[in-house]
Amino acid sequence: MQSKILELIDQKRMVDARDELLNLNVVDIARFLEELHGDTLVFLFRILPKDTGAKVFSYMDSDIQRLIVDGILDNEIRTIVNNSFLDDTVDFLEEMPANVVNRVLSNTDEKTRKLINEFLSYPEDSAGSIMTIEYISLKEEMSARQALKYIKENGTDKETINNCYVLDEYRTLEGVVTIRKLILSDEDALIKDIMDSEVISVNTFDDQEEVASRFKEYDLLAMPVVDKEQKLVGIVTIDDIIDVIDIEHTEDIQKMAAMMPSDEPYLKTKTITLAKNRIWWLLFLMISATLSGMIIRRYDAILSSHIILASFIPVMMDTGGNSGSQSSTLIIRSMALGEIKTSDFFKIIWKEARVSILVRTILSAVNFLRVYFIEKTDIAVASVVSLTLMATVVLSKIIGGTLPMIAKMFKVDPAVMAGPLITTIVDVMALAIYFGLASLILGVL
Amino acid sequence: MQSKILELIDQKRMVDARDELLNLNVVDIARFLEELHGDTLVFLFRILPKDTGAKVFSYMDSDIQRLIVDGILDNEIRTIVNNSFLDDTVDFLEEMPANVVNRVLSNTDEKTRKLINEFLSYPEDSAGSIMTIEYISLKEEMSARQALKYIKENGTDKETINNCYVLDEYRTLEGVVTIRKLILSDEDALIKDIMDSEVISVNTFDDQEEVASRFKEYDLLAMPVVDKEQKLVGIVTIDDIIDVIDIEHTEDIQKMAAMMPSDEPYLKTKTITLAKNRIWWLLFLMISATLSGMIIRRYDAILSSHIILASFIPVMMDTGGNSGSQSSTLIIRSMALGEIKTSDFFKIIWKEARVSILVRTILSAVNFLRVYFIEKTDIAVASVVSLTLMATVVLSKIIGGTLPMIAKMFKVDPAVMAGPLITTIVDVMALAIYFGLASLILGVL
Repeated sequence: MQSKILELIDQKRMVDARDELLNLNVVDIARFLEELHGDTLVFLFRILPKDTGAKVFSYMDSDIQRLIVDGILDNEIRTIVNNSFLDDTVDFLEEMPANVVNRVLSNTDEKTRKLINEFLSYPEDSAGSIMTIEYISLKEEMSARQALKYIKENGTDKETINNCYVLDEYRTLEGVVTIRKLILSDEDALIKDIMDSEVISVNTFDDQEEVASRFKEYDLLAMPVVDKEQKLVGIVTIDDIIDVIDIEHTEDIQKMAAMMPSDEPYLKTKTITLAKNRIWWLLFLMISATLSGMIIRRYDAILSSHIILASFIPVMMDTGGNSGSQSSTLIIRSMALGEIKTSDFFKIIWKEARVSILVRTILSAVNFLRVYFIEKTDIAVASVVSLTLMATVVLSKIIGGTLPMIAKMFKVDPAVMAGPLITTIVDVMALAIYFGLASLILGVL
Repeated sequence: MQSKILELIDQKRMVDARDELLNLNVVDIARFLEELHGDTLVFLFRILPKDTGAKVFSYMDSDIQRLIVDGILDNEIRTIVNNSFLDDTVDFLEEMPANVVNRVLSNTDEKTRKLINEFLSYPEDSAGSIMTIEYISLKEEMSARQALKYIKENGTDKETINNCYVLDEYRTLEGVVTIRKLILSDEDALIKDIMDSEVISVNTFDDQEEVASRFKEYDLLAMPVVDKEQKLVGIVTIDDIIDVIDIEHTEDIQKMAAMMPSDEPYLKTKTITLAKNRIWWLLFLMISATLSGMIIRRYDAILSSHIILASFIPVMMDTGGNSGSQSSTLIIRSMALGEIKTSDFFKIIWKEARVSILVRTILSAVNFLRVYFIEKTDIAVASVVSLTLMATVVLSKIIGGTLPMIAKMFKVDPAVMAGPLITTIVDVMALAIYFGLASLILGVL
């Protein structure tokens, strides 16, 4: 299909190409157009039917959206905004430079402009910033038949009709009724009798992560957003929540690898921004790692007399770090999924302690055999190495398991207590134990 | 509300407690019951209305589900199964031991039993294993009015009526029509004229991760699952997809921290299983880390004459590892989100090379100043340390940036090429460069 359209474009049969294009899903139309050269792209976009055009526009990359806005007339901009859902327009404007925003805003009617400005002012990552205002509102005293008739007349430009919201005369949220319930109920049933008045809702200023976790908990398709007086101001739909879930996952993963979180796609992020997101943590961890260096320096006497000890530093550091990272990662993820709470603190210490006993026994046994029989060091050194491994694994599992929870208690994001930071902390301890044991055992011999 | 119900239970006013409970959302009823003692829990559950009971059951934890099944009669089991969606019954049975499965299966009619067995046989993580068969199917020649009437009569026990599927006489999927379209269209419009015939569908054996990425790409609420002959066998709904997204994220994060992936909740996982999931990678990485040890041993002459060198080993190892982990994490995540492809290989090397020049310059300058002025080592040692840092950061960024892509080219999950493995690789290189430079510079002086 796509190659046929390209052929038509080559033959300059643009209207035929457009008609062929319209057989595709809007998402695929957006992807197809994005691959074209600037002029052809803008030309084809301009001859799309206006409602399709607005939908295609909302699925495009912000670079391409900007290219299109720069290539079309003011009244075409107005058509796109009028045919788009408010949340898509706001998403698009958030990515645009000031001059584009001004041009778009000056081409919308005053009411929409006021609404857009209001939406743009909600804090980033709040429920208000991802909601839309195109929802169906019903009255308690309507019958199911009247409600369906109202939806038929007013539903076209709503983002969803699957959930309808029941409001009183002051726009206070009274209940929610699904389209399913409306269709399956008796036609004369009153809305107030079939609606669900236990509505799960969020406040405009609630964090989007909180909104997402409620969607998951209650298997919702849409959720109402209310202000402080319980008046309905908008709704959040599941498609936006899936994006939120992905963004929050990305942020967690980036924090866990000691970076400042950023939701910009990698290839689009400027080199200087990438460097900036990474340098502070690297600097902090580098300075912290000198603590480990200080420990080694303190024991330079035992190190000079047993230079072989230096060759086991990497194994100590890596094994402790890896074993601690495993524990902290599991705990951070379980906390993010709400599987464990800070009140499980002691259960987790106990569990990690038991896991570490199994793990440390195997690791230090394997290591002892390897060091003693294969590397043929004397038994004292092999014992120091194995004993240190034992202690390190246990400590690293307990530290890795508890630090994320302690972070949460102090309202710090647990994701920060992941691999890199745990490794740095565990390294210091591993080396202190290693050289402490070495002085004790080898110093006496 | 919850405390009032607890009070009623204390006063043994169970029917009142039940009535109060029914004001809650089914999810909250499930959470509330889960907190009760076994007998009270089972008693209250048994007096719930049967359709609510089945829904509440589907939201319960598998331990509690088992407790209930053990406490109720055969005909009550039958009622739950008959009032549950097939996918929820299958999910529940997958977590039960064989005797419970047998008891449940022997209490369902033959048709359902056959279906359940068929569903249980789909490979884990396939589209077939998460689909449901309770969907609405329509015929092309129906009018919108007829379709709505059909839905009103048959919709009660369907998992969703938001998307309806249009089938021919051989059950081949011809198109999809949303309830929205049905309501907003002219009542006499024919289904074949208003349906969307470009249906996004998946095959029963497609991986659930693939299904999830299509849901995201096309902003879907439900997707049809077809067999090899394009016949409709079931549908997947968005609520199950959100669970899939969470599970896949958890697996990625666990792999990135060098563990075998597992989707069991942390506190429910047996100690021995936790240990088993972690030990293989730890063993492998521990053995690999001895490569670093071998490098140190090779240079024991220079180390003996300049014992101070040992104290910088931790900084070298940690900085290289952290800087490599940052790059690999960003790339792994961008690949998972589909933002970058293996064809971007050289773009990424180029980008990471530029980022690393910025990062390494700052890190090695700070480090030089610290080592020379604060730790007061001689300028030769300070130079060796700083030069090594420079080289390590550049190499680690390039290795961290490219290994995940190379893994993907060889069909290995890129998530494996994360922090722990990158750290081990970068450590070897960092130490080789460090001691190589040290011999060169300090050996000559």
